[in-house]
Amino acid sequence: MVNFTYHVPTKIEFGKDKEKEIGAHIASYGYKKVLLCYGSERIKKDGLFNTVTESLKANGIEFVELGGIVSNPILSKVYEGIKIAKDNNVEAVLAVGGGSVLDSVKSIAAGAFCHNDIWDYFMLKDAITGALPIFDILTLAATGSEMNCGAVVTNEKTKQKYAIQSPVLYPKVSIMNPELMKSVSKDYLVYSAVDIIAHTIEGYFNATVQPHFQSRIVESIIQTVIETTEILIQNPDDYNARAQFAWASTQALNGLTTAGTAPFIYPNHMIEHSLSAIFNIAHGAGLAIVIPAWAKWYFKRNEEQFKRFAKIIFDTNSAEDGIEALKAWFKKVGAPVSLKDANIDENRIDEITANAYEASKLWGLSDVYTKEAIAEILTLAK
Amino acid sequence: MVNFTYHVPTKIEFGKDKEKEIGAHIASYGYKKVLLCYGSERIKKDGLFNTVTESLKANGIEFVELGGIVSNPILSKVYEGIKIAKDNNVEAVLAVGGGSVLDSVKSIAAGAFCHNDIWDYFMLKDAITGALPIFDILTLAATGSEMNCGAVVTNEKTKQKYAIQSPVLYPKVSIMNPELMKSVSKDYLVYSAVDIIAHTIEGYFNATVQPHFQSRIVESIIQTVIETTEILIQNPDDYNARAQFAWASTQALNGLTTAGTAPFIYPNHMIEHSLSAIFNIAHGAGLAIVIPAWAKWYFKRNEEQFKRFAKIIFDTNSAEDGIEALKAWFKKVGAPVSLKDANIDENRIDEITANAYEASKLWGLSDVYTKEAIAEILTLAK
Repeated sequence: MVNFTYHVPTKIEFGKDKEKEIGAHIASYGYKKVLLCYGSERIKKDGLFNTVTESLKANGIEFVELGGIVSNPILSKVYEGIKIAKDNNVEAVLAVGGGSVLDSVKSIAAGAFCHNDIWDYFMLKDAITGALPIFDILTLAATGSEMNCGAVVTNEKTKQKYAIQSPVLYPKVSIMNPELMKSVSKDYLVYSAVDIIAHTIEGYFNATVQPHFQSRIVESIIQTVIETTEILIQNPDDYNARAQFAWASTQALNGLTTAGTAPFIYPNHMIEHSLSAIFNIAHGAGLAIVIPAWAKWYFKRNEEQFKRFAKIIFDTNSAEDGIEALKAWFKKVGAPVSLKDANIDENRIDEITANAYEASKLWGLSDVYTKEAIAEILTLAK
Repeated sequence: MVNFTYHVPTKIEFGKDKEKEIGAHIASYGYKKVLLCYGSERIKKDGLFNTVTESLKANGIEFVELGGIVSNPILSKVYEGIKIAKDNNVEAVLAVGGGSVLDSVKSIAAGAFCHNDIWDYFMLKDAITGALPIFDILTLAATGSEMNCGAVVTNEKTKQKYAIQSPVLYPKVSIMNPELMKSVSKDYLVYSAVDIIAHTIEGYFNATVQPHFQSRIVESIIQTVIETTEILIQNPDDYNARAQFAWASTQALNGLTTAGTAPFIYPNHMIEHSLSAIFNIAHGAGLAIVIPAWAKWYFKRNEEQFKRFAKIIFDTNSAEDGIEALKAWFKKVGAPVSLKDANIDENRIDEITANAYEASKLWGLSDVYTKEAIAEILTLAK
């Protein structure tokens, strides 16, 4: 195991009716005015908006609103939020939604606090120095953003889907009520499942130091995601499955699986970000396309670990069979597993490659993830 | 899954040489004077005491000392520490040692802050209202105290081994350098292994709501403890095994395994505490005696989970075989598995029962853990 620091200060409030406590949580910090961010107007129809704002009012907390945050959240909306936050001198930011709303809120929180243009931090030109305090009520479990300090946003003008990360971006309190997640469509449930699996397997497969204990935690998460996704496809109202799915999602990207593993990278995410930046497909859908192709391209570099995965997750013996079994599972639950499945013309591979290669250079991965390597992976995904 | 709150604010600094940073961590909070607590004088010979005090001095931190804390830490030593802390107006408390030192430090930290006699809190007469800030350098991994908010101390006059728990008792920073743990004797390595397994299986077996995800995390910890204990018995210098053993130990009792499980209790710990309170045997040794007996007494109440355990951990099919396999493993690695093995006369069962029953009443468990039930379990442990 390599040296590491593990420090996740976020308080998780998990379970039924927990969203009713949001006002009390924010008030316990003494904040009196928040920016309330959300996605579609659906939350105004289904009662959640009302529950949240009643809780804020009951605790003497004023709020201003930013709605309309979309999946694959965009930079222009972040700028809009930063302006509202500054104009209204809000003291904290509250996300009500999934990972896209939360990542937008994290970006707004940093942008409203720091001096630089927020995109400078995504371009790694400078380090984030602080952020407004972040609270959230999660309505879709997938990104793990509720218990980590990262955020991903797309600059829609430049088609760059990049990330920020800073300890100041850990939410103070994240509320996770699995009942609020049951209205997620079957497609987004599946994309979320792929995303969670993707979070765990990056380090699992490409870290050169990968202790068994960390592998076992990863496998526990993947087994849980596979089991609960299949239950939820049949019965979206299964609370216990929904809850385990959500909690596994949180554990998949809060540092637990990678504590003590050697430096590892996120090549599948890097390449997928180009797909969703250019074609605006769901992140999980893009990952289901990239992962099997990347795995075929990569597995000989770490064949023992791929064999382990094959055996433990799919009870099959070879690395190749494990990769095929994962691809087959993605397909079975309804995720696209090729560019063609997502109606992406293979003639666009050069464009996707060029986009991903820019990220590869920015993140210092271009020695391995050359243009040629990325193109080869994408060709395997045709 | 049942509702839960998960909030573990402790920062873990894990790895080689991390103990050299202790002064900087304490100074980052602005504290200038600490009470430094430890066990045997060995740390003055092996250089650790020097490393720690140099780090404190380099960061302008004064210290006063309390040495001589023993395994199964005793209340009189806690009082001694509280007096030193108060007399010297220390601002924080630093433990350098294993779980006994850390639990003593937590008790000192609470006792120096709160108005009541510290034992009142162990007797559940009042709730802890605050504590001096706690820091630690862990030299033995077993109790999980480095990332939780509990502490266990023995009142040597009354022979009561009881516990306190409060969110104010989470350490601020816990330093875990596996290299500092390699001087642990083979016996204590084994007792530690039993203790870690014991922490995970209490909830695993007796919670009525036990989601698969939480079971998988427990199984990951147990598999890791079994694997690394066997490696470390052969080769105490195996850093990677030592590190995984330690990190699994931390995860075994920080709330991760029990998040979302139904109310669960610690009957094995309760009964063992009477053994170590009366006979001063190592806690892990006592647990190895109690667990197989308790499991035989209990398993029919939750047979499916015992079968699951048998299959996944020992690849055997019946609940009984799983229990026997666990007992055999304890025996194989050198732990006592009966009262006789620990030279405890079976004529003392009444005395042990009476002691454990007092705890059973205090903790509200006496409907199930009656005198008769406790005696029956102890008889199975003869």
